[in-house]
Amino acid sequence: MALSIAHLGPPGTYAEVAALAYVHWLTDKGQKAILCPCSSIAQTLYSVAQGQADLAVVPVENLIEGSVVMTLDTLWQLEGLQIQQAIVLPIEHTLLSHAPTVESLQTIYSHPQALAQCQRWLEQFLPQCQLIPMNSTTEALQQLKQEITAGAIASPRAAQLYNLPVLATSISDYPDNCTRFWVVGRMANPAGGTYTSVAFSVPANVPGALVKPLQVFASRNINLSRIESRPTKRSLGEYLFFIDLEADVNQPTVQAALTELATFTEVLKIFGSYSILPIQSISRVN
Amino acid sequence: MALSIAHLGPPGTYAEVAALAYVHWLTDKGQKAILCPCSSIAQTLYSVAQGQADLAVVPVENLIEGSVVMTLDTLWQLEGLQIQQAIVLPIEHTLLSHAPTVESLQTIYSHPQALAQCQRWLEQFLPQCQLIPMNSTTEALQQLKQEITAGAIASPRAAQLYNLPVLATSISDYPDNCTRFWVVGRMANPAGGTYTSVAFSVPANVPGALVKPLQVFASRNINLSRIESRPTKRSLGEYLFFIDLEADVNQPTVQAALTELATFTEVLKIFGSYSILPIQSISRVN
Repeated sequence: MALSIAHLGPPGTYAEVAALAYVHWLTDKGQKAILCPCSSIAQTLYSVAQGQADLAVVPVENLIEGSVVMTLDTLWQLEGLQIQQAIVLPIEHTLLSHAPTVESLQTIYSHPQALAQCQRWLEQFLPQCQLIPMNSTTEALQQLKQEITAGAIASPRAAQLYNLPVLATSISDYPDNCTRFWVVGRMANPAGGTYTSVAFSVPANVPGALVKPLQVFASRNINLSRIESRPTKRSLGEYLFFIDLEADVNQPTVQAALTELATFTEVLKIFGSYSILPIQSISRVN
Repeated sequence: MALSIAHLGPPGTYAEVAALAYVHWLTDKGQKAILCPCSSIAQTLYSVAQGQADLAVVPVENLIEGSVVMTLDTLWQLEGLQIQQAIVLPIEHTLLSHAPTVESLQTIYSHPQALAQCQRWLEQFLPQCQLIPMNSTTEALQQLKQEITAGAIASPRAAQLYNLPVLATSISDYPDNCTRFWVVGRMANPAGGTYTSVAFSVPANVPGALVKPLQVFASRNINLSRIESRPTKRSLGEYLFFIDLEADVNQPTVQAALTELATFTEVLKIFGSYSILPIQSISRVN
């Protein structure tokens, strides 16, 4: 039976490109899959938690803009979701428009993250333009039909898919720009992997409340590849922490660390272990 | 001579309300001040760094949405800026529109943070509406003139200032919603205060690289009221950290802690010590 994979739509978003890379990888293993575009990142995760989709592909972190807080906040709020795979997708931003030249553009539409990632390029080459944030890079493309002086920043795949003229390529301020996605499901990933992700809250206003949780890993020589704080939304100064470990949850050292960690935390969520999707699966999408 | 105070404009933004509260406080001390609205948060900080304004009032953190990453990234990038004061502003979101009833609305405009903070209210009472993000809550108000079916989420002050009908008050999903601002200048704050903020980068891929910096404070019983990670933008997995200490930089213990901290960090920036603006100065604005 085909797996259903939810992602932020409509087709042409970077989330769809990541989901397609994952589908290629599944197909090579003999597993069929279909894509289910959703209207928001939260909706993507809800559809898995409620059993309408088998898996969700969600953006976690961009090299330049940092965490995708909608993903982290929704994962914290929902119960029982487990990470199956990470996908690191190179992000190549493209300027699309029906305008004859860059000089004739007056308005640029895109997702706020894409606008932020091309900020210096836009200031240098399009200082005359007004920047308008949209819900997704694909949604921005709808403006191009009505306005000849409008441009949109989106993926090269969106240009192909919607047959739109490309005015400029590789306009990101950081050439190595990439976004990390997680594939999330309802069951633990049986294969395990090189990364483990956890999230926890700590008692408020205790000096060193975060030191003890971090020492649990440092004392066992387990590297943290990421730490991110989010507000608990209860009172200013109370935080949750999302941590990625470079280790498999099935190792006895990691098990011991997590058992000790639980004694220093209020709520502890373990999202399981996973590996990064091989780069070959990604290069086949474009 | 009057101090010039930069903030995200146009008039009616929450940043302007915070700046006005600060002006009241200055006036009580016999210091005159004028407001300088800027087009972006980055521009606000640049204007101080480049000497066009004396002080900038910038949002740092919202109770619900978390850090304002534009503020943190710009502060890290600029040289020599020092925090003079913190302002904790209660955020009361109001729905403004020329429409006769809530039911006749079709589109809601606001800053993305304001839309996110009222998400559940909007889903419950305005499920039919399309949500359109704008650069500021005040910019959203411009849409109301042209579209009778449009609503905007903004401050009660904006309703007064632009003489706009209020369709609903207190629509935030979290009644205790508040945003913390910093007043930033070019000189150290001579008064010091109860909080000290620092930012630092640590060597990448070293197990426990963050544990040692945190131990510096825990071993001296100095409480951290906040920790926030931001990507260095060099490679995925490299971070800066912004930390707020509940202590004055002029205390010998804090001096010793910061000297030790410098031995574990790559780049260390000390933004100085400051207090929170008295609540009386804020309640005088509305």
